[in-house]
Amino acid sequence: MSTQSTLSPTSKRDDDRERLVVPFRDGGREQKALLGGKGANLAEMTRIGLPVPPGFIVTTDACRSYLALGEVPEHLYEQVEESLVELERTSGRGLGDPDAPLLLSVRSGAPFSMPGMMDTVLDLGATPTTVPGLTAMGGERFAWDVTRRFLEMFGRVVLGVSAEAFDHNLEQAIADAGVATERDLDPDQLEQVALAHRASISAAGAHLPEDPREQLRLAIEAVFRSWNGDRARAYRRVEGISDDLGTAVSVQQMVFGNLDDASATGVAFTRDPATGENVPYGDFLLGAQGEDVVAGTRAVEPLAGLGDHFPELHQELLEHMDTLEQHERDLCDVEFTIEAGKLWMLQTRIGKRSASAALRMAVEMVDEGLIDRDEAVRRVRPKQLEALLHPRFGPDAPEPLTTGLAASPGAAVGAICLSSAEAKDRGIAGEDVILVRPETSPEDLEGMVASVGLLTSRGGLVSHAAVVARGFGKPAVCGASELRIDAKAGTVTVGDTVLHAGDMLSIDGTTGQVTPGEVELEIPDDDPKVAQLLAWADERRALHVYANADTADDATRALAAGAEGIGLCRTEHQFLGDRLPLIQRMILSRSDEEEREVLVELEQQQREDFTGLFEVMDDKRVVIRLLDPPLHEFLPDLEELHIKAAMDEITDQERVLMEAAEQLKEHDPMLGVRGIRLGVLRPEVYRAQVRAILGAAADRTKAGGRPLPEIMLPLVGTSQELEWGVNLIHEVAAELRAAGEPEVEYTTASMIETPRAALRSGALAPHVDAFSFGTNDLTQLTFGLSRDDVEATYTPRALELKLLPVDPFRTLDPDGVGRLLKLAVDEGREAKPDLVTGICGEHGGDPDSIQLAHQLALTHVSCSASRVEVARLAAAHAAMEVTGPESSA
Amino acid sequence: MSTQSTLSPTSKRDDDRERLVVPFRDGGREQKALLGGKGANLAEMTRIGLPVPPGFIVTTDACRSYLALGEVPEHLYEQVEESLVELERTSGRGLGDPDAPLLLSVRSGAPFSMPGMMDTVLDLGATPTTVPGLTAMGGERFAWDVTRRFLEMFGRVVLGVSAEAFDHNLEQAIADAGVATERDLDPDQLEQVALAHRASISAAGAHLPEDPREQLRLAIEAVFRSWNGDRARAYRRVEGISDDLGTAVSVQQMVFGNLDDASATGVAFTRDPATGENVPYGDFLLGAQGEDVVAGTRAVEPLAGLGDHFPELHQELLEHMDTLEQHERDLCDVEFTIEAGKLWMLQTRIGKRSASAALRMAVEMVDEGLIDRDEAVRRVRPKQLEALLHPRFGPDAPEPLTTGLAASPGAAVGAICLSSAEAKDRGIAGEDVILVRPETSPEDLEGMVASVGLLTSRGGLVSHAAVVARGFGKPAVCGASELRIDAKAGTVTVGDTVLHAGDMLSIDGTTGQVTPGEVELEIPDDDPKVAQLLAWADERRALHVYANADTADDATRALAAGAEGIGLCRTEHQFLGDRLPLIQRMILSRSDEEEREVLVELEQQQREDFTGLFEVMDDKRVVIRLLDPPLHEFLPDLEELHIKAAMDEITDQERVLMEAAEQLKEHDPMLGVRGIRLGVLRPEVYRAQVRAILGAAADRTKAGGRPLPEIMLPLVGTSQELEWGVNLIHEVAAELRAAGEPEVEYTTASMIETPRAALRSGALAPHVDAFSFGTNDLTQLTFGLSRDDVEATYTPRALELKLLPVDPFRTLDPDGVGRLLKLAVDEGREAKPDLVTGICGEHGGDPDSIQLAHQLALTHVSCSASRVEVARLAAAHAAMEVTGPESSA
Repeated sequence: MSTQSTLSPTSKRDDDRERLVVPFRDGGREQKALLGGKGANLAEMTRIGLPVPPGFIVTTDACRSYLALGEVPEHLYEQVEESLVELERTSGRGLGDPDAPLLLSVRSGAPFSMPGMMDTVLDLGATPTTVPGLTAMGGERFAWDVTRRFLEMFGRVVLGVSAEAFDHNLEQAIADAGVATERDLDPDQLEQVALAHRASISAAGAHLPEDPREQLRLAIEAVFRSWNGDRARAYRRVEGISDDLGTAVSVQQMVFGNLDDASATGVAFTRDPATGENVPYGDFLLGAQGEDVVAGTRAVEPLAGLGDHFPELHQELLEHMDTLEQHERDLCDVEFTIEAGKLWMLQTRIGKRSASAALRMAVEMVDEGLIDRDEAVRRVRPKQLEALLHPRFGPDAPEPLTTGLAASPGAAVGAICLSSAEAKDRGIAGEDVILVRPETSPEDLEGMVASVGLLTSRGGLVSHAAVVARGFGKPAVCGASELRIDAKAGTVTVGDTVLHAGDMLSIDGTTGQVTPGEVELEIPDDDPKVAQLLAWADERRALHVYANADTADDATRALAAGAEGIGLCRTEHQFLGDRLPLIQRMILSRSDEEEREVLVELEQQQREDFTGLFEVMDDKRVVIRLLDPPLHEFLPDLEELHIKAAMDEITDQERVLMEAAEQLKEHDPMLGVRGIRLGVLRPEVYRAQVRAILGAAADRTKAGGRPLPEIMLPLVGTSQELEWGVNLIHEVAAELRAAGEPEVEYTTASMIETPRAALRSGALAPHVDAFSFGTNDLTQLTFGLSRDDVEATYTPRALELKLLPVDPFRTLDPDGVGRLLKLAVDEGREAKPDLVTGICGEHGGDPDSIQLAHQLALTHVSCSASRVEVARLAAAHAAMEVTGPESSA
Repeated sequence: MSTQSTLSPTSKRDDDRERLVVPFRDGGREQKALLGGKGANLAEMTRIGLPVPPGFIVTTDACRSYLALGEVPEHLYEQVEESLVELERTSGRGLGDPDAPLLLSVRSGAPFSMPGMMDTVLDLGATPTTVPGLTAMGGERFAWDVTRRFLEMFGRVVLGVSAEAFDHNLEQAIADAGVATERDLDPDQLEQVALAHRASISAAGAHLPEDPREQLRLAIEAVFRSWNGDRARAYRRVEGISDDLGTAVSVQQMVFGNLDDASATGVAFTRDPATGENVPYGDFLLGAQGEDVVAGTRAVEPLAGLGDHFPELHQELLEHMDTLEQHERDLCDVEFTIEAGKLWMLQTRIGKRSASAALRMAVEMVDEGLIDRDEAVRRVRPKQLEALLHPRFGPDAPEPLTTGLAASPGAAVGAICLSSAEAKDRGIAGEDVILVRPETSPEDLEGMVASVGLLTSRGGLVSHAAVVARGFGKPAVCGASELRIDAKAGTVTVGDTVLHAGDMLSIDGTTGQVTPGEVELEIPDDDPKVAQLLAWADERRALHVYANADTADDATRALAAGAEGIGLCRTEHQFLGDRLPLIQRMILSRSDEEEREVLVELEQQQREDFTGLFEVMDDKRVVIRLLDPPLHEFLPDLEELHIKAAMDEITDQERVLMEAAEQLKEHDPMLGVRGIRLGVLRPEVYRAQVRAILGAAADRTKAGGRPLPEIMLPLVGTSQELEWGVNLIHEVAAELRAAGEPEVEYTTASMIETPRAALRSGALAPHVDAFSFGTNDLTQLTFGLSRDDVEATYTPRALELKLLPVDPFRTLDPDGVGRLLKLAVDEGREAKPDLVTGICGEHGGDPDSIQLAHQLALTHVSCSASRVEVARLAAAHAAMEVTGPESSA
């Protein structure tokens, strides 16, 4: 939403009396922090004249006060009573009135959307004494159905009685009646169910107060408490929502989509939330309550079909939706109910959308004049853009086994996993798994997060699975109704085909296709709307976006993605593959002469590599890092050689390699002889690399190009080391000039990846033109934490216990690593005002880290080619100060 | 010296004309920066009326100017000429005067003593034309001997002709004459040598100017240049002397100890420099020049024997020495020469001394009323105290093979090494080697530094080997004249016993004993003077000194050494030895129950350990660190198990251990699951340890003791981790109270050993009572450098190239790690004013690091028991602002 500024928690009010309860007619959408998103939108719809069942909102102030004190604030129930009396008066009904009972929905509504994460109580006010009045409204069956539904929900949510007892009662009644579903039960049978429910509540030791006003108070407090439920906390952690906000509670007169044949209920979007196409989209069910649509337990009809049943109401709904979209200037979703031929709008919010839809709508709404370009750039989250760039099934993909709803775009390949717990464990352990479930619920959240894709056999595009998958940018296929899932047997069956848990499976959430085995995936063709949006984003960002690329091919891809230069070319990658034996010979060389001989050859090969790179990146900065990893990385595994030696199966050549590897073996290679230390001990290697770089630049210059190499020294710790390295570079440059090579422009850079380099940046800066923050190593050293060693052990547990505020390898740690970055930038610039600064760790492609980079006023970020587009958008968002998980939807 | 304030370089003078040349009579000891130590002392001796041959000093200003510009400053030779003319006038002799030639010594003299590191030219003024005049002074043989000596020295030092040519000429003459030494050559033969020397100079392409004034100018410039010679630079690096000071040059009238039978020369100390005993000590040679004594090439007579030859002059010398000692209030050494029955004082300086002598003199001079206690504490360097605490041969040591001079105290055991180059290589590689040489020269410096001890067959207590060894605190036995050393054959022979290079050898520099094989060494008994000096030091220090001790035995030793508490008790050491199988069972436990069972046993054992520790350290703070190392350190080596498995030789039990080790294996264990991360993943282990600590404290409390445990959490990175750990401690404490244990006092501490902890100290401090800086890990992480992996590879090379200012694992890096320390102390104290702070890394026993700790106003340092005394003294020095290598001698 664009009304960020109103979302800060409101703890004090101007008037003396706290705003604990606000009637719908007194609120508005600007009050989301106080009224919650749902409440504020209900008030807004009321304000602009849409048909909303009347009600009032218990504020987040009240909730926070309750959670802090353990009891409701002093005047809360006084204010609730005032609003309730007014509601009774305007509706002409009374809570608990046997003849004209008022039924209420009591729903949670936090400042940020947390779908399904907190509790709701419906049908409050349905008691044994109100059956006559309810019968008068919708008949005896309706009366008992409402009554038993209330008992189920109140019993579970407020009294904490297990849902199983109620399920059992209902199943028993269905079995006793010999019918298929509860919809076939008659009034008497439903009355028996209600009686059984009351008995179950008593049996569980819970006390059901008979006074509906008391029930209301308990329901409000239960909703308050659900803010701190496990599911809600887990969701907030993942979405980065503060635990301090609290939830509001809307208390609203119930309307019934299941009252009679002229009743229905549905959910709708003002545009297609999956594709963004400008056509209303939704589902409805005749004679049903709202939760039946969301739960995906009954087959819904598409919105377009509503006109067949209620042409005028359909038209009215479309008009209301248009009003809402114009009012919000964004995609809206609504819940509506038709009760006995009257349309009610029960809820609206800014609609969640797929990545493609976010992009399409952002660009099209600019064309439509609904929003400006700034707003369009704001509307697409970097994560969504990333999803857009996700792979899909290639054109040669085999015929799918079945097709479901394309619920969340992108394709994924992984092992079938039939339980969320298992998916969580295996996913965290690094395995690609696809979670396959009949449907999902908030309990499945962690398993969903850990999976590469989701497949459900039930539920629609607004089912839990689909909404959550889109939110997380995970591919999902939902409602693939041909699937038969047997978790106990560990099988997934479609017709005669039986797949087993652990089998590989491919899904394409853009098409809905489900294909056994590992389908080859394809990067999607450029969507011109991506280019359009990124062009707008480019105008708004301050950070340059470079790419990490090691070869001319990488660089070509990076250029296509919009990279403005190469921020990190790792030269060690040139030593792998065919050239490995050569570098091994260099390592094994016993004399300076032998070393020189090998280096001449390596130099020649590298020179060709760099010439190709400079050709692609003509007139663009190319930052080349001299050899960084410890030399033993170029040798075979020492343990394997030792085993061979122990078994007398070692060759002479292997023995030589073994001895070299023994000499180079290190306890902690990350902290050993690597980076510039390697250069100090093997200066000829660095000299050869510098000759190759500057020689290639000379070749390009002779060919009429304009190479802009920057030579970067890794793992610098002291200014003396840096000075040594820079002098070496300048010496080689002078030698090349002396040997008649043409003068080439070049600059020098220091990696800042040890804490000491950051702490000494003022002494380092005068020696070089640029700093590049190697945030992977810097994070590793600042925490004393190796990603490789703790990612599957300590990190997940620490995140769970909140001992690490974020995974510091995913998002730059602002307090520790960020402090070093700030210090280094400030002191580096003080010592050298025109110092170029950038990030070239994996954080360079992470939106939150890019925001930090922008705040530090770095010159650039550099990331893998595949993240360049995302980084361009994130850099624009940083410049526009777009923050928070709800920034665009 | 106590006149530190005068030692800063003087680059500007008050008068307009630069002070390029200062006659002896115009200077004084307060001008060491300008005149050099030697020149200032010559001037001072002149000032207090001692018989000093006249002369003048070319100042360090002139030298610095020459080194900066590459040529002598404008008025230098004008001023030299003025002083020279005065010298000619007062002496009645002329430079180059054939009848009454003036001969000069031209000697270097830096502000800090650099014995033998720079160049000297003697006998300048001896030319073919002055032979008649010289003959008149001391006969024809003297004339030619002086002439050929001048040619050798000037040729080598000023003209750069190789010494070999001159050696060859002399040896040839000796051989031709059929005599034993050059002393047996007659005047004609010496004249031939002089002629041969002139021919050698020409043959080497060098030009010998005939004008002695020109020779003087060249000699002065050669001495200037020798400031930047390799030997001088290496010495300064080791001693920490600035390269910017420059050297002065003293030009002094020569006097001759070899003039006639009434001539002699010698060196003497006002007290015994090896023992500190208050008796004059020295050596002399009849009819010899000074360098014959220092070089150790002729057998010297002890000073006491001088009275037999020159009773009056001996008495005069002792009086002069007494005058000097009273004047300097410190041990002085002097060079003296008797020329034709007249005593001349050629040089004096504050005498180098052994560690024992430094201690004895410091304490005795207080008793004598010569100095106060402050000065006594200043006079003993921490390094010297360390040497005093060095081991000696035990009482059961075998009969020595031979005995030499006890040149530098302490005993050492190592492999015989006959070349300095080899000693350097092997010593740096970590081997204990004893360098065995006929004598040493400045070229041997690096080999000497790398050896654990020195043994020479020639030279006395003032020989190069002895002086240098004392300076470095290395054990040395010198002048073991029974040794026959054959470097080529690789043998050392004494009588019939032949030792070979590589054989183990033991030497005791306190007794002079040399014993083949590995003698068992013994820590010396407490010298009451050590206790006396340390008692004085304790009154002067601000830092508390704690010890690192893991057991009650360690703690007992630490208490005896004066530790005020335990700054670090590492609990993992309690898991080794007998208890290893138990902790392995804990690691392998498959169920919580099994883990608990093992932990109960470990807890009981630890509780007993801690009870013992608290008993020893009653009423003293004991900081106990919870388990820190990665668990795989408690398992067998994985590679060995893999080899056994490959060879089918693995037992079932080993296979279980192998699987556990595979699970726990880490790429970089230093950065893996250790410290508090271990506690987070295995909280029951931490809980058991806390129960053991607090249970032991309860046991001691019940027994009437006063335990003061502090429980410390290792490798903390975030304030949330720390809070988690502290909560765990408090919970266990509450459980123990609830279980009826008596209330015990305890405090909590956080290790600050990750850069992040330092950067977040303000957030950490409120959770604990104390910070303890783990400077080993903090250094490792700040540099990204593992001591284990680079000490034999990168560190020596980086120190050589000055890429590392100091070895950061020996001395705290002030700029990087020190900055983090300062930040952490400042921000920690801001958040919690009464925060206790200390260092518990190996730096806690390093004098320079202790100085930094004092400057940061830390509460304490903690070091191994064996370094506690040194730390107490270093802490006093820090408080008294004693700095620099020459602070006490």
